[in-house]
Amino acid sequence: MNAEIITVGDEILIGQIVDTNSAYIAEQLNLIGVGIYQKTSISDNREHIIENIDRAFKTSDIIIVTGGLGPTSDDITKQVLAEYFGAKRMKIHEPSLEIIKSLMARLDIPLNEANRRQAELPDCCIPILNKNGTAPAMWFERSKKILVSMPGVPFEMKAIMNDVIPMISKYFKLNTVYHKTLLTYGIPESILAEQIKEWENKLPEHLHLAYLPNPESGVRLRLSAYNANDKNLLIKEIDNHFDSLRKILKTAVYGENDDNLASATGELLQQKNAMLATAESCTGGHIANMITANAGSSKYFKGSVIAYSNDIKIKMLGVKASDIEQYGAVSEQVASQMAQGVRIALNSDYAVATSGIAGPDGGTAEKPVGTVWIAVATPRKIIAQKYILSKLRDVNISRASAIALNMLRLELINEE
Amino acid sequence: MNAEIITVGDEILIGQIVDTNSAYIAEQLNLIGVGIYQKTSISDNREHIIENIDRAFKTSDIIIVTGGLGPTSDDITKQVLAEYFGAKRMKIHEPSLEIIKSLMARLDIPLNEANRRQAELPDCCIPILNKNGTAPAMWFERSKKILVSMPGVPFEMKAIMNDVIPMISKYFKLNTVYHKTLLTYGIPESILAEQIKEWENKLPEHLHLAYLPNPESGVRLRLSAYNANDKNLLIKEIDNHFDSLRKILKTAVYGENDDNLASATGELLQQKNAMLATAESCTGGHIANMITANAGSSKYFKGSVIAYSNDIKIKMLGVKASDIEQYGAVSEQVASQMAQGVRIALNSDYAVATSGIAGPDGGTAEKPVGTVWIAVATPRKIIAQKYILSKLRDVNISRASAIALNMLRLELINEE
Repeated sequence: MNAEIITVGDEILIGQIVDTNSAYIAEQLNLIGVGIYQKTSISDNREHIIENIDRAFKTSDIIIVTGGLGPTSDDITKQVLAEYFGAKRMKIHEPSLEIIKSLMARLDIPLNEANRRQAELPDCCIPILNKNGTAPAMWFERSKKILVSMPGVPFEMKAIMNDVIPMISKYFKLNTVYHKTLLTYGIPESILAEQIKEWENKLPEHLHLAYLPNPESGVRLRLSAYNANDKNLLIKEIDNHFDSLRKILKTAVYGENDDNLASATGELLQQKNAMLATAESCTGGHIANMITANAGSSKYFKGSVIAYSNDIKIKMLGVKASDIEQYGAVSEQVASQMAQGVRIALNSDYAVATSGIAGPDGGTAEKPVGTVWIAVATPRKIIAQKYILSKLRDVNISRASAIALNMLRLELINEE
Repeated sequence: MNAEIITVGDEILIGQIVDTNSAYIAEQLNLIGVGIYQKTSISDNREHIIENIDRAFKTSDIIIVTGGLGPTSDDITKQVLAEYFGAKRMKIHEPSLEIIKSLMARLDIPLNEANRRQAELPDCCIPILNKNGTAPAMWFERSKKILVSMPGVPFEMKAIMNDVIPMISKYFKLNTVYHKTLLTYGIPESILAEQIKEWENKLPEHLHLAYLPNPESGVRLRLSAYNANDKNLLIKEIDNHFDSLRKILKTAVYGENDDNLASATGELLQQKNAMLATAESCTGGHIANMITANAGSSKYFKGSVIAYSNDIKIKMLGVKASDIEQYGAVSEQVASQMAQGVRIALNSDYAVATSGIAGPDGGTAEKPVGTVWIAVATPRKIIAQKYILSKLRDVNISRASAIALNMLRLELINEE
């Protein structure tokens, strides 16, 4: 079963926006066992749209089109689809008109003709409600293949995809699919592959393994099972395989599915009824940002001192001025004192601290750009480690943040 | 002059990574006056690659291919291109081999055959050095059209594009193009368009205006001039138009070109020789993160207290416990005291503070999710303002951060 994604509109072609929609749609389709044959971005041009739909119907069973459904004259996707699928007339879809009316009322804008026309749909499509916007989605069928047209606004598209995925599963009578992902950090992909080779070779044929590496979240390992007759049995089977995998990878495994390094660390802290504080220099708030991106993080996160200047390190965190003088701000001594200092100042149980040269300037022969000291303070000890990362400021900030959270996580596990 | 971007590889098709490369390449090409006809993502499949190159050469003069240049057997782009362009043999590109050797040496990995083969290039291409990775880029010519193949690793691709853009300008003898962007914050796009309508209508035909809206950076207004015979005259002309525009938009304009809200605010602070501190609750470090993403921010940024828990607000920032009790942590009183508290504690001249309900939980009828109090403290006064943003945690964090920086920026301007 193949699909193709076609995005319509100039914003993507001129590079004004990054196309995050396609990745989301591809991922959702993959999760029900539908592969993506091709993704194509084109402008709001009738011939170009028709040519691409024609082509895509030759290679794929499912075509997802996003964009080009706005109220302005350059948005022509709906008209082109009406023509392509031979609509006899456009008719008002009352439930969509109700949504448009209530959205306009909330914004205190009178309903105009352009808004009203957004509820007009070709009579040959199945309308799909867009609960979050003015452009409804449309489902077309031709020769046992389908085309779905959706608006390009990401949160509108995502909500609609929630409804479209089960419709696709039902229409094509797709087999149940089950996925589970194990999250690892700290082992490079090539070494990880070597370590789990034997385990991987023993996997039965109906289970498929995918490596999903990402610099800020490590390597995710996803097991997928298609053709699942007995889902409960399958869940048990995958759990068993992951149990063996956990025995091989041990503490490199930090979570499952939608966990992230910060939430996994937070989970461990909560189990200990412990609170965390951070003291950040080179990461400049990125660690706190990663932690607080998780809802509920206030249960284990007290806060942070972003000590960008040395006097804050001294005044707020109790770092010894003489040590900054003697060893420099980027040193084992200073990072350790920052961690211990913020742990005490913020009345926390655990703390992490970073001090480094994010770049692009400030490097020396002895301490080049990318040098970072990371420290973890616990109720029992303080540990610190040096890393030499990259020449790029943004890469250094995000990698140092992930390494710091992982160091804390390993310490929380090891002390048990 | 048209171009097409083709990305090769499964990572994008399975939705594992968001394709940021295409947006970057499209933007860079647009800046030299090259429009993008189509963007296409396909898998590492010989026939599919050839079919798309054939098609793209029919509609475009420039084809940019990214990805599929790795050392493993699934990466076939180089072989397919060698075949397509009729290479007689592959030959070692010595400067690329030197780079590969030094990269391997730095990682302390012995050079193997797969690494060595990455320096082998078809004899019919012009090699382009990849200073940051093991896969060199390749420039092919056919019937006065070109194809450039680059690795898909974003920072490698970006550095190579720096070299490719002037090569393209020279090859196609492109006219000089000049762009300048004015950055605005705080006026929604539709209202902005209304305000500058008269100015826009008076623009001469050789100048093109683009609106580039973005939730975290406001609306950017870009003027582009193609066919520039006398570039200096043109620069002066665009400057004059922007001068008139500044008179209309006044303090909504925060910068030009590559500035951002944080760097623009930093610039104003530096002019006053003033230092900034931030106290963040609901934004959880995102403001500090935005500031410290800019190299050199230590010149005006002292640091931050991320006061996620109330006791930190009390202990570190001097917020009155009785006010938290009486008005709640999300209140004018608490936000104001946080701003003033961090200003004093971190010995700074200016401070911003945020306290709000980022969501998804924690909202009440009186203070729904998305309620944020933002305060600015200066040497002379404290101001605070309430906003009701959205239901989405990430949107609330990033919008509150941008609004806070903008409030400070306006205060820095107005007090002059």
